[in-house]
Amino acid sequence: MSLSKDLALKERAARVIPGGMYGHQSVASLPDGFPQFFSKAEGAYLWDADGNRLLDFMCAYGPQLFGYGNPAIDRAYVGQLAIGDAMTGPSYLMVDLAEALVSMISHADWAMFCKNGTDANTIALMIARAHTRRTGVVRARGAYHGAAPWSNPRASGVTQADQADQHLCDYNDVGSLDAAVATAGDNLAAIFAAPFKHDVFVDQMAPTPAFAKRARELADQTGALLVVDDVRGGFRIARDCSWSIVGVQPDLSCWGKCIANGHPISALVGSDKARAAAEAIFATGSYWFAGAAMAASLVTLAMIRDTDYLERIEELGKRFRAGLDERSAAHGFALRQSGPPQMPLLLFNDDPDMRLGYFWSSQMVSRGVYVHPWHNMFLSAAMNEADIDAALDAADASFRALAQAAPRLGPVEKLAKVLAARAR
Amino acid sequence: MSLSKDLALKERAARVIPGGMYGHQSVASLPDGFPQFFSKAEGAYLWDADGNRLLDFMCAYGPQLFGYGNPAIDRAYVGQLAIGDAMTGPSYLMVDLAEALVSMISHADWAMFCKNGTDANTIALMIARAHTRRTGVVRARGAYHGAAPWSNPRASGVTQADQADQHLCDYNDVGSLDAAVATAGDNLAAIFAAPFKHDVFVDQMAPTPAFAKRARELADQTGALLVVDDVRGGFRIARDCSWSIVGVQPDLSCWGKCIANGHPISALVGSDKARAAAEAIFATGSYWFAGAAMAASLVTLAMIRDTDYLERIEELGKRFRAGLDERSAAHGFALRQSGPPQMPLLLFNDDPDMRLGYFWSSQMVSRGVYVHPWHNMFLSAAMNEADIDAALDAADASFRALAQAAPRLGPVEKLAKVLAARAR
Repeated sequence: MSLSKDLALKERAARVIPGGMYGHQSVASLPDGFPQFFSKAEGAYLWDADGNRLLDFMCAYGPQLFGYGNPAIDRAYVGQLAIGDAMTGPSYLMVDLAEALVSMISHADWAMFCKNGTDANTIALMIARAHTRRTGVVRARGAYHGAAPWSNPRASGVTQADQADQHLCDYNDVGSLDAAVATAGDNLAAIFAAPFKHDVFVDQMAPTPAFAKRARELADQTGALLVVDDVRGGFRIARDCSWSIVGVQPDLSCWGKCIANGHPISALVGSDKARAAAEAIFATGSYWFAGAAMAASLVTLAMIRDTDYLERIEELGKRFRAGLDERSAAHGFALRQSGPPQMPLLLFNDDPDMRLGYFWSSQMVSRGVYVHPWHNMFLSAAMNEADIDAALDAADASFRALAQAAPRLGPVEKLAKVLAARAR
Repeated sequence: MSLSKDLALKERAARVIPGGMYGHQSVASLPDGFPQFFSKAEGAYLWDADGNRLLDFMCAYGPQLFGYGNPAIDRAYVGQLAIGDAMTGPSYLMVDLAEALVSMISHADWAMFCKNGTDANTIALMIARAHTRRTGVVRARGAYHGAAPWSNPRASGVTQADQADQHLCDYNDVGSLDAAVATAGDNLAAIFAAPFKHDVFVDQMAPTPAFAKRARELADQTGALLVVDDVRGGFRIARDCSWSIVGVQPDLSCWGKCIANGHPISALVGSDKARAAAEAIFATGSYWFAGAAMAASLVTLAMIRDTDYLERIEELGKRFRAGLDERSAAHGFALRQSGPPQMPLLLFNDDPDMRLGYFWSSQMVSRGVYVHPWHNMFLSAAMNEADIDAALDAADASFRALAQAAPRLGPVEKLAKVLAARAR
């Protein structure tokens, strides 16, 4: 698999883009065989700059749910673009879209639209603070709620004041949740929770009903707002807020990524309790009210409502998971597969510095299957059984190659640096 | 001019959108005749939900520079959408676009892309803090640098910690700039400046060379970074960073709005001095690396480089300004027209509670010309002399109506509330 064009692009990029690339799509901490730049995407597949085709288990880190270039969704985008996108006021589609989200998400009485998941989380925080006239935040250690200074996972450029009044608990640990809320005292504004534990580098974890219910109780007792950050998981877990599966309704939930199948729009929805505070804050952005992504989202939401995409991606995820267990075992490896099958994370047992997972995922990419060694993956409704089976064939060959290479693998230098940075 | 469909939409919106609408495109503090929802945009014109056509002097609050639905720009967007938009990594167009910005903006050695002007400003702040390992910010009182908690113009939902270590000066007042920098002491990370004073409700002001040069000197003396927030003014003042007209190069500048003619992308560019800090921070967003807006931006930047759009919008702005002076005087009114002619603000003399401007702008809208009573406006290269002359005819009729109505106009209740909120 040639990556010569990718290499040439990386050299140009190193001159005009900090680090050659930044953010979650930088491959700086992925194996060398991972291409950085892409030339094409269609259905379940990506093509890198050199024209290598890859079955994509990342789905643009979530946005792609119904296939890259989905004809019906993109037709809606392009059609509205010809009519009116960013204008001096919103298209009337904004009302349709708010009604659609309110009709689909049980706890929602209203919706606001923005562009990033970070926007939705930050607005949620501001609304909780306006609602309570307090400042404290409880959230889980290691959980990602966007890259704003208040939630940024890295220390560089972030001040202590940016992250003042934050109290950390451990996901699913009711005792630690109680303790964090107690530490916030009478200053608690919000409890933030991911729909499930989908932190990088560690096993994923479904929310326990006890944890979710306790979060709801504590919010009610203290008057704080409960926020579910469904940016990553939303509509891949349920056709409603993801905590509907454990019977808990938050006050606010944050949406993005797949709600328009990759077209740029995110949303915050809330209950009537939080409406006055939502009206009190000032939140806006140049392109937040543009019509084309709203048209695309309306079609995407209809497909979420009316198709069996959710059952299908869960089925495909189970097929992938079972096949990986079987093939890894055949080559003498044991995997820890966690998370919902349609948002899987795959780690190797007995692989503390991740040298096995790192080598195996690079083998998968060289065989045309884009998997991630330490971030949860995403399945899409554009995949089918044949795709999964082809991925399992690639997995088999990759486990075989790993079995041969394992004795001479050393620690992964790139990764040691990242893991050290995370351990600040 | 019927607004019955707009009214019906507003009633539906009031149920599912906080306040019926939020952010800079809410018409809650504009006259009743301003439509909230739009059905179409083409060239220099907007159509509201009722089908009323409006010559648009807001240009989507800036993004529209070459006409709504510009064929060449939208063709580039749609073409790249069919190839690959949001993918698991960036399109190689990202490298082309970074190179294009670096080639056009004198101080730029690198570029980062994001989605909102707020993103670009917040990343600039983080980079300045990472670069200096300090926290202090100097910026002008009343200047808008986005809606993040650190820069949000409203108090609701914002904490004191969010805006800690900020020191305010007055735009173009060198003494107050010196004083603010002195207050920051040895903790100054960044000096933020708008390209010109484009605050709402007050006369606009071009930057004096003395102010801009002093900002540069103070940044150099203290080691802080100088940031020009060109989100609103960028490429409407110069084909380079806007402070190039006063001969001052910042370390960082923020871009958005018109850089892809309304397609959703913003950018931060910087000099080599800030490169290491830009590499140190973590900044990202789900759709930041999507290719279609980059393709549209490449075409937009080529038009900025290769056409006389800038001279044309300046000419058109001068024609509008001179015509307004003449026609207002004919009806006994004196205007204060400020800002660059292509980004004009129009206030009435002897109109402390803005009742004259408020009535006049509502008359303009009822005659098919969308002007804003207290926010700077924007001209676009899709306008021509006939459009300006038609706007001046509407202005003449609107001044006549104002002259008749003025004696019985009372204070504007809506506006009193807004002005009080601003005076916090």
